[in-house]
Amino acid sequence: MNLADSAAALRARRVSCRELAQDALRKIAELNGRLNAFLTVTEERALRQAEALDRELAAGRDRGRLHGIPYALKDNLWTKGIRTTNGSKIWQDHVPGESSAAFERMESAGAVLVGKTNLHEIAYGVTSSNPHFGVVRNPHDVDRIPGGSSGGSGAAVAAGIVPLAMGSDTGGSIRIPASYCGTVGLKATYGRVSRYGAMPLGLSLEHVGPLTATVRDAAIALEALAGYDARDNATSHRPVERYEPDDAAVKGIRIGVPENFYFEYTQDEVRHSVEGALGAAETAGVRLTPVRVPDIEALNTISRVVLLAEASALYEPYLDRRELFGPDVLALLDQGRFLPATDYVNAQRARRLAQDEFRALFCEVDLLATPTLPITAPRIGEKKVTIQGREEDVRLATTRFVRAINLIGLPAISLPCGKDSTGLPIGLQLIARPFEETLLLRVAHAVEMALS
Amino acid sequence: MNLADSAAALRARRVSCRELAQDALRKIAELNGRLNAFLTVTEERALRQAEALDRELAAGRDRGRLHGIPYALKDNLWTKGIRTTNGSKIWQDHVPGESSAAFERMESAGAVLVGKTNLHEIAYGVTSSNPHFGVVRNPHDVDRIPGGSSGGSGAAVAAGIVPLAMGSDTGGSIRIPASYCGTVGLKATYGRVSRYGAMPLGLSLEHVGPLTATVRDAAIALEALAGYDARDNATSHRPVERYEPDDAAVKGIRIGVPENFYFEYTQDEVRHSVEGALGAAETAGVRLTPVRVPDIEALNTISRVVLLAEASALYEPYLDRRELFGPDVLALLDQGRFLPATDYVNAQRARRLAQDEFRALFCEVDLLATPTLPITAPRIGEKKVTIQGREEDVRLATTRFVRAINLIGLPAISLPCGKDSTGLPIGLQLIARPFEETLLLRVAHAVEMALS
Repeated sequence: MNLADSAAALRARRVSCRELAQDALRKIAELNGRLNAFLTVTEERALRQAEALDRELAAGRDRGRLHGIPYALKDNLWTKGIRTTNGSKIWQDHVPGESSAAFERMESAGAVLVGKTNLHEIAYGVTSSNPHFGVVRNPHDVDRIPGGSSGGSGAAVAAGIVPLAMGSDTGGSIRIPASYCGTVGLKATYGRVSRYGAMPLGLSLEHVGPLTATVRDAAIALEALAGYDARDNATSHRPVERYEPDDAAVKGIRIGVPENFYFEYTQDEVRHSVEGALGAAETAGVRLTPVRVPDIEALNTISRVVLLAEASALYEPYLDRRELFGPDVLALLDQGRFLPATDYVNAQRARRLAQDEFRALFCEVDLLATPTLPITAPRIGEKKVTIQGREEDVRLATTRFVRAINLIGLPAISLPCGKDSTGLPIGLQLIARPFEETLLLRVAHAVEMALS
Repeated sequence: MNLADSAAALRARRVSCRELAQDALRKIAELNGRLNAFLTVTEERALRQAEALDRELAAGRDRGRLHGIPYALKDNLWTKGIRTTNGSKIWQDHVPGESSAAFERMESAGAVLVGKTNLHEIAYGVTSSNPHFGVVRNPHDVDRIPGGSSGGSGAAVAAGIVPLAMGSDTGGSIRIPASYCGTVGLKATYGRVSRYGAMPLGLSLEHVGPLTATVRDAAIALEALAGYDARDNATSHRPVERYEPDDAAVKGIRIGVPENFYFEYTQDEVRHSVEGALGAAETAGVRLTPVRVPDIEALNTISRVVLLAEASALYEPYLDRRELFGPDVLALLDQGRFLPATDYVNAQRARRLAQDEFRALFCEVDLLATPTLPITAPRIGEKKVTIQGREEDVRLATTRFVRAINLIGLPAISLPCGKDSTGLPIGLQLIARPFEETLLLRVAHAVEMALS
């Protein structure tokens, strides 16, 4: 059952909060040995909380659609009194004394935390498995990666363990597992969701957001997560909208389909699937417009420069204890220390120019549509992939279509739009203007309906 | 005559725009040989423009208080068709094809440009004389520096050549010459005034603003300068207020007087003069409150790290032609190239924390009052100054009280509050919360009135 269905069933008394929590906990017990999606399971706490929420409902106190919904948090989000490892040896036994804004907001909305999900070490690197906590496996094929860094959250939702899991996205880390695992993944505008208590990696690129089974569920989660927070000075004072899609018409909405870059060096099955989804959207009334996008490869490089510097600035104090890190992350952290400040400053200048370019592009269209990734989920350990005759590093292929969007700060969603011939999910990425999450979710929902 | 008086005289037909321009041009001819305040004089253009503005006034078209007021622009502000050197050999013959926002806004307000003022090379360094265009001299004592980098603008206003000259302020460059020359100097909140066409140096620290004879005049200038500009993405959409002080009461306004740092290692005469001004303000009704300010020395260091990196990022492409630069600027530009990106990122993180500290401080008080500088104008060529028995580099002494305010982005004004025993001016610095220029100018005006 997805989130909205569970919410309806609860109110129809067809199920209780406790039963929903028990069901999620039973699935963890059943599947986590194979998937390794959870690092911590909060069984007792979840059952106690669910019972309290049942009593609340019985007493007529309804906190809204998240009331009693079991969910998971990526293990880089602080949970007061509950271990938060950040996928790192540094914090393997760390119990934070404060909670992240994401956890606080879910708590007050009445969602029931069932556990903390596995992730890449400090949410860095991209497709590597975690050297301290092991690889997460893709529920569609356990020999394949779920993508990262929010891989445990993607696997948990895709396996039907929970209808909602929180992720974080610095270079694609929500949209990548959403695409590889066949879930919805939403990264709202930079500054829409507080990152307070999300263990930092690249502060100017970082977002917190939900992975869910449906677009509607992502909208419900965003409504609870969004809003100003004095503890994250990037958050905006803009009012939070009612994001839940209302089946309003999408007729005439202009969707830009990139002529350059986004459909080049993309697996044929991925391209056909995305084109099929766009065709269905067109039938539903949107207007497809070919557009040329800015030089995304250049923006990916700029994003990498920004992230290398920001991550190394944060982790420099730990770098004399080299045994704390796996080799992949250590290499990235070392690399960042050799960047000159002038390169970082120039990257930030180029970033502002690119933001202007996107602003101009969004005068012509209302949204952009692209494949989320050029490929479907690679096998665990696979280093190279060949796409249309060109061999490419799996890590680069995995971030190629998503990373630059973090640099610009635009809201973006990945939603399932089909499967390849081996049954692996394919994702469609929709990108909107800053703070136009309502439009983004409306169109994403219309595409999802058109495809179902 | 100051700006407001000239504006009144114009409307009373006691003087014409042409006469005001002629008067300014005559003073340039008379004084510039001694002061070296102007690099370019726009005589013909000024007279033509003044005549046109006289015809407008005669025809009943009144552009407001700046209509027909002669003024000068620091020579790092682009003036289309008029040489803009940036005090540099690189641009010694450069005629820009576009105008700065400051020039455009002054033009449309009807102010009459009479010339471009001398400045430190690329507005960098602080008290050094310009190696390409020579030293500017302080009108109060031509053997002394006017301070910089907007030294020509300070000297031009202090000598009574123009009632208004634009400066720019990255680490104190408006407030320093205002204090040494005995004028008012206003640096509004970061993002209040467009920097478009201001030749960049340290983009996250940089401001454009006026130097004037009175607080009222600075307010009139700010009202014309302020506002959103799509070409400077730091500018704010906040509405521009009516900044001109209206003699409203200042009773009960809480002025924080730092117990630490700002009155330490300050010349006795400077301290007494500032204390006298605060006493007068208290008599006028403000409430003086002792406060402890954050670690300003640390913030000065952080500002320097930020500026070193940003300036070197901009000037790196020129650094293979070393003969283009004077030795002081070259040393700073070289230094910035060796900064690691992680230091810059950490400086920006520390900056955000300091902004929070100042936010907390401004819960206790409405404004801060400090000396603008710990000393009065040093002699040309003087490298060291001894303050209360401690020897200090003149450059460090000159920026010690002003630089950190750019890092925080707060609006600040320097206004004359007295003279030392040799007749050199002393400045009082008032600092307000972001975008509280109206309050800042009201209190500055009240202090000015109380002292007159």
